[in-house]
Amino acid sequence: MADKKKRRRAAHDSDSDSESRPFQSKLKPDSVILQTLKALKSSCSTTSKTLSLSDVGLSSTCREVADLPIDEVQSEIESLAFTIAKSILSGEGFSFSVPSRSAANQLYVSELDRIVLKDKSSARNFGNVSTVRKATITLRILQLVHQLCTSNIHVTKRDLFYTDVKLFQDQTQSDAVLDDVSCIVGCTRSSLNVVAAEKGVVVGRLIFSDNGDMIDCTKMGMGGKAIPPNIDRVGDMQSDALYILLVEKDAAFMRLSEDRFYNRFPCIIVTAKGQPDVATRLFLRKMKMELNLPVLALVDSDPYGLKILSVYGCGSKNMSYDSANLTTPDIKWLGIRPSDLDKYKIPEQCRLPMTEQDIKTGKDLLEEDFVKKNPAWVEELNLMVKTKQKAEIQALSSFGFQYLSEVYLPLKLQEQDWL
Amino acid sequence: MADKKKRRRAAHDSDSDSESRPFQSKLKPDSVILQTLKALKSSCSTTSKTLSLSDVGLSSTCREVADLPIDEVQSEIESLAFTIAKSILSGEGFSFSVPSRSAANQLYVSELDRIVLKDKSSARNFGNVSTVRKATITLRILQLVHQLCTSNIHVTKRDLFYTDVKLFQDQTQSDAVLDDVSCIVGCTRSSLNVVAAEKGVVVGRLIFSDNGDMIDCTKMGMGGKAIPPNIDRVGDMQSDALYILLVEKDAAFMRLSEDRFYNRFPCIIVTAKGQPDVATRLFLRKMKMELNLPVLALVDSDPYGLKILSVYGCGSKNMSYDSANLTTPDIKWLGIRPSDLDKYKIPEQCRLPMTEQDIKTGKDLLEEDFVKKNPAWVEELNLMVKTKQKAEIQALSSFGFQYLSEVYLPLKLQEQDWL
Repeated sequence: MADKKKRRRAAHDSDSDSESRPFQSKLKPDSVILQTLKALKSSCSTTSKTLSLSDVGLSSTCREVADLPIDEVQSEIESLAFTIAKSILSGEGFSFSVPSRSAANQLYVSELDRIVLKDKSSARNFGNVSTVRKATITLRILQLVHQLCTSNIHVTKRDLFYTDVKLFQDQTQSDAVLDDVSCIVGCTRSSLNVVAAEKGVVVGRLIFSDNGDMIDCTKMGMGGKAIPPNIDRVGDMQSDALYILLVEKDAAFMRLSEDRFYNRFPCIIVTAKGQPDVATRLFLRKMKMELNLPVLALVDSDPYGLKILSVYGCGSKNMSYDSANLTTPDIKWLGIRPSDLDKYKIPEQCRLPMTEQDIKTGKDLLEEDFVKKNPAWVEELNLMVKTKQKAEIQALSSFGFQYLSEVYLPLKLQEQDWL
Repeated sequence: MADKKKRRRAAHDSDSDSESRPFQSKLKPDSVILQTLKALKSSCSTTSKTLSLSDVGLSSTCREVADLPIDEVQSEIESLAFTIAKSILSGEGFSFSVPSRSAANQLYVSELDRIVLKDKSSARNFGNVSTVRKATITLRILQLVHQLCTSNIHVTKRDLFYTDVKLFQDQTQSDAVLDDVSCIVGCTRSSLNVVAAEKGVVVGRLIFSDNGDMIDCTKMGMGGKAIPPNIDRVGDMQSDALYILLVEKDAAFMRLSEDRFYNRFPCIIVTAKGQPDVATRLFLRKMKMELNLPVLALVDSDPYGLKILSVYGCGSKNMSYDSANLTTPDIKWLGIRPSDLDKYKIPEQCRLPMTEQDIKTGKDLLEEDFVKKNPAWVEELNLMVKTKQKAEIQALSSFGFQYLSEVYLPLKLQEQDWL
């Protein structure tokens, strides 16, 4: 039976060769490609330093939060409470100074290659009719977070909402104030022990600890390991990978995982299954920082693929106060790039016409600083907007289901074809 | 530092006692609750036999598919191809007999407690203008599946679509025909090596193999193990659990996982993070069958919670042809049940008013056979529709974040309060 399968597979391999799988003949032996990857990894070691606000002289005009141990979060909240009590006892009521998170208070800093929050704040006064509700909610959230610190457990934003539905009324209100509380305390949301639901998975040449359990990601079958929601319980990362492969969609993840691509070209494969969630962004950054590995991104060739890449790389405006912890510097755009469509002869019928909305999103991206600062990206995006064509990673299936893992990716790596 | 945390936790425990956490004082020692669970598990052993269509005399009027090894799927497709070739050579063109999957061809069988497909079929003729397109698509899907069998790899429905966009035009067409092909070949969709993206996770007292790797789910930290998309690569299940806890949402999963609830009351905890996907349904059934464990469900107290429970238990109409493989018999409704709202004194502000749509869905469910056959469920659902109130699992957070794992669930288990 096993023999039969092997014979079949061999027969299949030989007849599915170059005519149906373009560029297969261009592939050099794996050992040559591995040399390329080793060179990439060692070049990465020298660029690993990441700048902070003070390095670029912005520490007084911009603000950002830090990962704080729960003891510090707790004392920070306690000292806030003392200040408030003092203010009340002196007959002045109380007020919070809350950093503004509006668009006007955001700044893309090219030296840091990420979006940061400027230093505008506004007063949230308990003694003012227009702000009394928000001031009360802020105090309540501070109290709940303090409770989480004392019992040292993690909860979701939904849990938090349900502890006081009467006050919060709907979850958008408690969520927004939670971000305010991060800014007020000056720590990340994970430091507050409030986590988002995880959806990312990881597989490949990585060993790490999750809440005290050692996880070997080469032994996670095809499903992979679910990325833990709370990054502060993740540690002890070890790896013999040469790079991290960041994949937009789970279909491509599954293909690479089943083919154990990570063993042929040693890597760690990670996906958030679409829009990057906070847990996956934190996990990616932690891998990059602790293992000092280059990150190559495989996303759809459409404006949203590039947008997703930019969220991993430069952060989202919504959480710019925490961009230092959430962003991963120096992600390379491996594919599928607009120029790949012709270069790899993706059949016309597997390309999709861009909608008006797609084209608008593409043009908007061209105005973004983080795209502009990379001329090669601008060129690719211009090509996309000009040809008005997009393509998903899955479009490569038109050359056979394993074309992605057996030809496209190895060739990309061999040719060092990343930007 | 560790000491400090311990002291804090203890302090917290003592002051968050019965007044703020109702019913905590009712809890008996864990050993008593464990006795209850052991009794539940042994009662399960005798009810594990599941009936098939032939047991209830329906094998000639209903149809269902089976899990087939890829060799058999391959020969089945090859013999179909021979029949077609013969028909063409004899000058008759060709035609498929395709089982109808319309609502009129569905039947709930109470003895089986699941929805099955009746035996109506229609001809899909290549020589007829109205069916030529679908016949061509059917043949193409058969060919692609044959290719998957020969190379023995798994792909997603999206991959399949992209192999021939010109023909399929949009993915709903290739998806629908894929279900037809399952019915024609008489095998499950997983047997065709076409899998859905996985979203489920599992944690707790389970060891199993995923694509050859042994996974110990007690050592999966807080994130848990992602449920593999392809059930045929899952095997060697071992467990010392007393029951399976099926959880609707990931927030509750996270709470139980962080608190390692599965060690205190030995169980396996599984969630599909909302709507049950095929991979999670197959995985749950496999656990139930191989380990012979009772399944207790923890869902929101709203019509969708019950609907989700019913999909795990009785199947969806869309895939009724495969209900035998996708459904898990004898799932107990543990909570949150409409009667729990008053029983556990869920505060008014944590209950939500049902919308018109909710009430309609609830009333529709009351007409469904799988609800009707369980009078206790009907009573609960009637109460929900009457009070017009719903509540999420997270509503329990109003008594403290760990009320779910430390009071509500232990008490439910102690009182054997499942239906």
